[in-house]
Amino acid sequence: MKKFRLFTPGPTMVPEDILLAMAHPIFHHRTPEHREMAIEVCELLQYLFQTKGHCPIVTGSGTSAAEAVIVGCLSPGHKAFVPRNGKFAERWAKVCKAFNIEHTTKDIEWGYGVKVDDVKQAMDADPKIDTVIVVHSETSTTTYTDVEGIAKLCRERDAILIVDGITAVGAIPVKMDEWGVDAYITGSQKALMLPPGLGFAAIGERAWNRIEGGNMACYYTDIKAYKASVDTGDAPYTPANTLILGTRMALRKIKEQGLENIWAETASMAKAMREAAAAIGVQVFAKDPVDSVTGLLVPEGVDEGKLRKTMKAKHGFHIAGGQGDLKGKMVRFSHMGYVDRFDTLGAISALELTLGELGFKFDMGAGVAAAQKVFSQS
Amino acid sequence: MKKFRLFTPGPTMVPEDILLAMAHPIFHHRTPEHREMAIEVCELLQYLFQTKGHCPIVTGSGTSAAEAVIVGCLSPGHKAFVPRNGKFAERWAKVCKAFNIEHTTKDIEWGYGVKVDDVKQAMDADPKIDTVIVVHSETSTTTYTDVEGIAKLCRERDAILIVDGITAVGAIPVKMDEWGVDAYITGSQKALMLPPGLGFAAIGERAWNRIEGGNMACYYTDIKAYKASVDTGDAPYTPANTLILGTRMALRKIKEQGLENIWAETASMAKAMREAAAAIGVQVFAKDPVDSVTGLLVPEGVDEGKLRKTMKAKHGFHIAGGQGDLKGKMVRFSHMGYVDRFDTLGAISALELTLGELGFKFDMGAGVAAAQKVFSQS
Repeated sequence: MKKFRLFTPGPTMVPEDILLAMAHPIFHHRTPEHREMAIEVCELLQYLFQTKGHCPIVTGSGTSAAEAVIVGCLSPGHKAFVPRNGKFAERWAKVCKAFNIEHTTKDIEWGYGVKVDDVKQAMDADPKIDTVIVVHSETSTTTYTDVEGIAKLCRERDAILIVDGITAVGAIPVKMDEWGVDAYITGSQKALMLPPGLGFAAIGERAWNRIEGGNMACYYTDIKAYKASVDTGDAPYTPANTLILGTRMALRKIKEQGLENIWAETASMAKAMREAAAAIGVQVFAKDPVDSVTGLLVPEGVDEGKLRKTMKAKHGFHIAGGQGDLKGKMVRFSHMGYVDRFDTLGAISALELTLGELGFKFDMGAGVAAAQKVFSQS
Repeated sequence: MKKFRLFTPGPTMVPEDILLAMAHPIFHHRTPEHREMAIEVCELLQYLFQTKGHCPIVTGSGTSAAEAVIVGCLSPGHKAFVPRNGKFAERWAKVCKAFNIEHTTKDIEWGYGVKVDDVKQAMDADPKIDTVIVVHSETSTTTYTDVEGIAKLCRERDAILIVDGITAVGAIPVKMDEWGVDAYITGSQKALMLPPGLGFAAIGERAWNRIEGGNMACYYTDIKAYKASVDTGDAPYTPANTLILGTRMALRKIKEQGLENIWAETASMAKAMREAAAAIGVQVFAKDPVDSVTGLLVPEGVDEGKLRKTMKAKHGFHIAGGQGDLKGKMVRFSHMGYVDRFDTLGAISALELTLGELGFKFDMGAGVAAAQKVFSQS
């Protein structure tokens, strides 16, 4: 039988047992059973984010949780630095703009992560900056930012660091408390291998102090309303409880497998994909590539639309195209969640078959062989 | 085998085939398949709300969609009247307060709907009022408000009428365009018989004109961002696509059965519940009862906690208690969504058995007999 494999960098494939578990007859959220479940999820989220901070659940897209944290931390009097190195970094600058949050930006060439020096220069130039918002894994450009380094600088300067970890958390190393990050955000449909519909935040003490002293006009995304829910399991507004049921299962699986093992295997799959690309003469786009999603430049002479269409219609691999200026130029493969090295080898195989059919010249089989070598060493 | 029946006024029971359909392997939302599905849902929502207006989908609790409409319609310069006759009416006044929206309220005795005269008096007293927010079916007090009458007044005074239809839409008659309502809101977990996680709005031309000229600070709940999605099927932020898949199925079922038939049967079940209560000497709380949910006062000498516990643990009927001042005094039974007259008869039977066990004196069987008479006449 033909198979379908979802390789987009979110949504990602959901384990079959979780899909079926979420088909559980519906139950009410103001019950001891739901509260117990929600509290367990919040505790498992602490493991996921590697923090002792509070981890509230917001029913909504990842954007709703990100807005809640940004708006909570940036009342009038504070100023943010939001370096823009992709579509999602741009979105957080738009949130600042929408809420009239004082902020400054710097456009960073797509394909590069934000450097500690970018943040240092911005802070030196403008001492009012007391908050930094960065994207750990910029999905749109498949690039990595050194959050650990930026967190160290933020601690030295006593600034709050908010990190969009939407395609980082659960895929690549995230050590919130060890690094000194103040707030992290993620969504359900990435490394957590769940359907979309939930946003998660992890908020440390410094950020909560900011939030509790805040006075921004907001209601649904007022993160203060969600704080109590972490201890009581009672959400302020009706929560997407079937998705929370799935989250408990996914997080239990993640804990059982161990974050370190998941991080190592994600890195292996990304390395295999990059080495395969090199072996068949296809270029990796990012100069600072992230391990949760790999972006490959479509070789000259190959039509991006045809490439993705053949991959999906003929071989059953749904990969993503590029966003913004990268539309038509890049294809992206996810390494997050319910995907393993053999799926990844399959994706490389399908890519080789597709490129061959589209007339691209290379040594057929060199990609899968290069990937296989990576897997044999890890 | 023992069975479990969820009779809370949201979440409500979800049809088994919809639960299983939502366990579909996950798919991407930037695809023709998803767009086609989302567009069909938006069209089916027009049928549900009985409107030619735009019906955007917001990933979030019903509160997120309500906030989006309220904030969109009430930029500075406008003033709202928000009569408070229950917990949800109070919530919309809180949203106004959170966003510094100019508004005035009137506290109405719980158990009563908002009357056309309440609105008329407020408008006469304050000509600045150009927007009215009412709750069609106040779930917390199980009361009905005459939206048609209030809409007529709002048209005469050229005011915008926003209606919380969260436990009304799909359960009791809602005729948005015929009545001249400007915006309606509902959520997935009530008469739409879906898990929680989606909010829906229906927005007419007058309201869109307000929204498009608006300038309130918001981002995730900026309803302008969702407008295009109604035509293109492309949500502004990652949508909860498995829930949207379920919505399509639920709305197709509703259309197939016919809204008029559903409204009539809901009214029958509510009438049966009220007549059953009268027959066993239990009082209906609301003076203006709504047909989507019935609230009964717990008879003197009966412990509300024991009543609900026995109903759930022994008989498998999960009913709701009261909210706010009605905590411990009232129990509520839903008549929304995937529930029929035989489930309702079962709920009445379980109530009689429970009251009997708790020592309440009445003519055992009088309730189910009274209900049966109602069903035999409809």
